[in-house]
Amino acid sequence: DIVQSVLAASAGSYLAGLKLVVSAGPTREPLDPVRFISNRSSGKMGYALARAAVAAGADVTLVSGPVHLPVPAGAEVIKVETALQMHAAVLNACRSADVYIGAAAVADYRAKQVAEHKLKKGETGAGMIQLEKNPDIVAEVAALHPKPWVVGFAAETDDLENYALGKLRSKNLDMIAANWVGRAEGGFDSERNALQVFWRDGRKTLEMADKTSLAVQLLQLIAERMHEKNPIKNP
Amino acid sequence: DIVQSVLAASAGSYLAGLKLVVSAGPTREPLDPVRFISNRSSGKMGYALARAAVAAGADVTLVSGPVHLPVPAGAEVIKVETALQMHAAVLNACRSADVYIGAAAVADYRAKQVAEHKLKKGETGAGMIQLEKNPDIVAEVAALHPKPWVVGFAAETDDLENYALGKLRSKNLDMIAANWVGRAEGGFDSERNALQVFWRDGRKTLEMADKTSLAVQLLQLIAERMHEKNPIKNP
Repeated sequence: DIVQSVLAASAGSYLAGLKLVVSAGPTREPLDPVRFISNRSSGKMGYALARAAVAAGADVTLVSGPVHLPVPAGAEVIKVETALQMHAAVLNACRSADVYIGAAAVADYRAKQVAEHKLKKGETGAGMIQLEKNPDIVAEVAALHPKPWVVGFAAETDDLENYALGKLRSKNLDMIAANWVGRAEGGFDSERNALQVFWRDGRKTLEMADKTSLAVQLLQLIAERMHEKNPIKNP
Repeated sequence: DIVQSVLAASAGSYLAGLKLVVSAGPTREPLDPVRFISNRSSGKMGYALARAAVAAGADVTLVSGPVHLPVPAGAEVIKVETALQMHAAVLNACRSADVYIGAAAVADYRAKQVAEHKLKKGETGAGMIQLEKNPDIVAEVAALHPKPWVVGFAAETDDLENYALGKLRSKNLDMIAANWVGRAEGGFDSERNALQVFWRDGRKTLEMADKTSLAVQLLQLIAERMHEKNPIKNP
């Protein structure tokens, strides 16, 4: 199929010997036993990255929120639901990782109080949801000592470049891959996407393509940049 | 497969000539272009009802929230996302319906304001979500003149019978099918479920079973009760 042929065309174990952690999908932040806040992430980009990284020879751990996608063969998959669960799983996996790619759409906020029973119409507090901030997973990974090579994602509805560059700097990332959401093509629900990739002293546009070939291009770019930054580790 | 064999075993066109509307799945209430409030409904019960109703000879319209299920052959499917969209589609379809089964998990509340751009951490209002009530679809269908025969669903975490009987009466339903959620077996994420079915002057327990056979049992019960209540229409 197309996935296999694209992955075969990118033959070469350019990630051999590296432990790579990818997070993918949305998180779900419960309001009560049945209701939750989530987002439109399908997990397709993160799963495509995990598959392509396995094909490139990496030892891959995929930390995944709730999605409807087949488990990538050859990857260790850790399924989580909330941002706090994803935080714990990613930080644990990243202690021994060479590369972390944060492709999950982690909820910025969770409900301050989670009801133990299903809230009824008219119940006190039912007209408002108080929120509190979730941890910033990619920033915490980038603050580890030693830290893996950290790639963030930014999905934006406007001012893409400024937000992406702001995140790259403020979170001390090695690279950020930014894409538009809420447009005609690309983004969360789509099989295709386009990425604007930024790092400290450079940038590259990966044109609209299916997420499988986009994943291969991004991983090759990561391998190039790591090689340049850290020539001893990846000669 | 098992679905076909269960449906074949229930052979008989006991719903022939009837127009049946089923709503299924969750609704998604947007917070901004990427975030939403939703619930754990898989749509499996409503889709099983639509399939079984087609097999029983009904003319079936399925109004479905976002789910990951194949479209039932022979049913007209109307896909919606929000409670307001489901409200419009169901009310329109029910104007000429004989039976309405409200198996969707419609959000009781939507966000009062939907942001046009993705909300940023720390943005004004990001710490709180103001809610407003959605219309009560099943109650509005039950208030139509003429009205179809109306079956509601109740998913409860406690005090199942009282909540179900309260909804039956206050919403003027002909029948309500109640099930536990948040328990070891059954409910939203499961292939199986058990139902406590109540009507004005009776009740019946449908024991834990796969949702396909449960759908057949519920439709047969609906046909029996309609027959008793309205002997001219269903002799």
